[in-house]
Amino acid sequence: MPRTVKTFEIGQKASFSKTITEADVVAFAGVSGDFNPLHIVEDYAKTTMFGQRIAHGMLTASLISTVLGMILPGPGCVYLSQSVKFVKPVHIGDTLTATVEVTEWAQDRAILKLSNQITNQNDDIVITGESVTLVRD
Amino acid sequence: MPRTVKTFEIGQKASFSKTITEADVVAFAGVSGDFNPLHIVEDYAKTTMFGQRIAHGMLTASLISTVLGMILPGPGCVYLSQSVKFVKPVHIGDTLTATVEVTEWAQDRAILKLSNQITNQNDDIVITGESVTLVRD
Amino acid sequence: MPRTVKTFEIGQKASFSKTITEADVVAFAGVSGDFNPLHIVEDYAKTTMFGQRIAHGMLTASLISTVLGMILPGPGCVYLSQSVKFVKPVHIGDTLTATVEVTEWAQDRAILKLSNQITNQNDDIVITGESVTLVRD
Amino acid sequence: MPRTVKTFEIGQKASFSKTITEADVVAFAGVSGDFNPLHIVEDYAKTTMFGQRIAHGMLTASLISTVLGMILPGPGCVYLSQSVKFVKPVHIGDTLTATVEVTEWAQDRAILKLSNQITNQNDDIVITGESVTLVRD
Repeated sequence: MPRTVKTFEIGQKASFSKTITEADVVAFAGVSGDFNPLHIVEDYAKTTMFGQRIAHGMLTASLISTVLGMILPGPGCVYLSQSVKFVKPVHIGDTLTATVEVTEWAQDRAILKLSNQITNQNDDIVITGESVTLVRD
Repeated sequence: MPRTVKTFEIGQKASFSKTITEADVVAFAGVSGDFNPLHIVEDYAKTTMFGQRIAHGMLTASLISTVLGMILPGPGCVYLSQSVKFVKPVHIGDTLTATVEVTEWAQDRAILKLSNQITNQNDDIVITGESVTLVRD
Repeated sequence: MPRTVKTFEIGQKASFSKTITEADVVAFAGVSGDFNPLHIVEDYAKTTMFGQRIAHGMLTASLISTVLGMILPGPGCVYLSQSVKFVKPVHIGDTLTATVEVTEWAQDRAILKLSNQITNQNDDIVITGESVTLVRD
Repeated sequence: MPRTVKTFEIGQKASFSKTITEADVVAFAGVSGDFNPLHIVEDYAKTTMFGQRIAHGMLTASLISTVLGMILPGPGCVYLSQSVKFVKPVHIGDTLTATVEVTEWAQDRAILKLSNQITNQNDDIVITGESVTLVRD
């Protein structure tokens, strides 16, 4: 799977969708060590403004890097930075779609910037963000 | 576990450490769907500038939210935004320490900003970032 | 994270809470090899006195060591022994709280004994136990 | 898989063996929430008397319940109590064998007691224990 030189156009988009299951939340807690009771203690979560356990924000955000690393720009790109705003909570059972869109070339087309948006099954935006990737060595 | 009102001081710090194992990378790929060969195909990774599989950047970054959600500000805070710069690659077997530090109060002490730094076992910085959290309803 | 010398008082308590999910039961089966159909075969479990799959007793009991190793006595203690009585079954979806309480010092304050109790969301006791830890080298 | 009435003899034995991998330790931390640095932070563990990460004691102990629930007494038995002594540390890569042995009948042959021993690949005993199970409704 050698990296091929690719060109990207402003406005080009790609997406990845996934239902967030309880198993995902449990596994993410296990990998990250984030046992914040909001994510793993149902009876605590019920007492909060969220009313139920919510998925870790960084679990949801990780879907952005899935698109970046697998589709656009795809394997071979180097992840330089990521910013995300957590707009709405994600509940167990939500189906998310992460979309990235090429917004800007920089540094003689070595750096590609992409805006990000993650929506749920109701088309509510749950995360917005921006990614910066290096696409030329 | 009801949330108690907390006060935080500028300069206050907290940390969380974890060795990143192959099992973490495998589990993170399974949760995120990010099967970028750089993370899961050793023979491909060997042909890249990294020379071996590296951990997903967002896996590493998730250690920041572990500190935020569990220690500082701790359970009850609401995660508003996160930005990260991926400074150095993380290899399987690296021991990471994520540290957050209170840098600023905003909006009448409802919003707490924290700078982030993740270092490896050689004290190299692998990620820098900034978190914004809501600590009052 | 060097261990600091700590003192503990009789009656001192600490807790950890977690909702037991199907994913936990599946993962515990995978780690332990305990594929007793009572835990992993719903149709079999329905025919038993339990009426549904129940969590592995040792999965539930492991929450005790979480409190011991992370909070009280915390990192640096050495786990010498553990006894548990399985009082009530734990079902998938139950939210458990493991509480340990310092009950006794022994051997010139090198050995700390703690009683344990795990309750569910209805405050039913599901496990009682006793832990013995070494807190001085 | 209906439960059949079984008879057991004093001295009857059964075993289960498993190599403890890093993935097991990672998964067990995820299920239990036990992120004691002794288990998950290699650089911390190196500074302790153990010299390296060790497996969670309750992970090792869970192999006893694997034998109980699957072989002797097997499916249908009800787990009443378990006590364990942690005799030696278990390292990643150790191959463990958990053996249970029927030691006593009680309460008109409704209660079966079994002694437990877990050994590693060098035949060192790492855990000793006792299980009490109900084998008749």
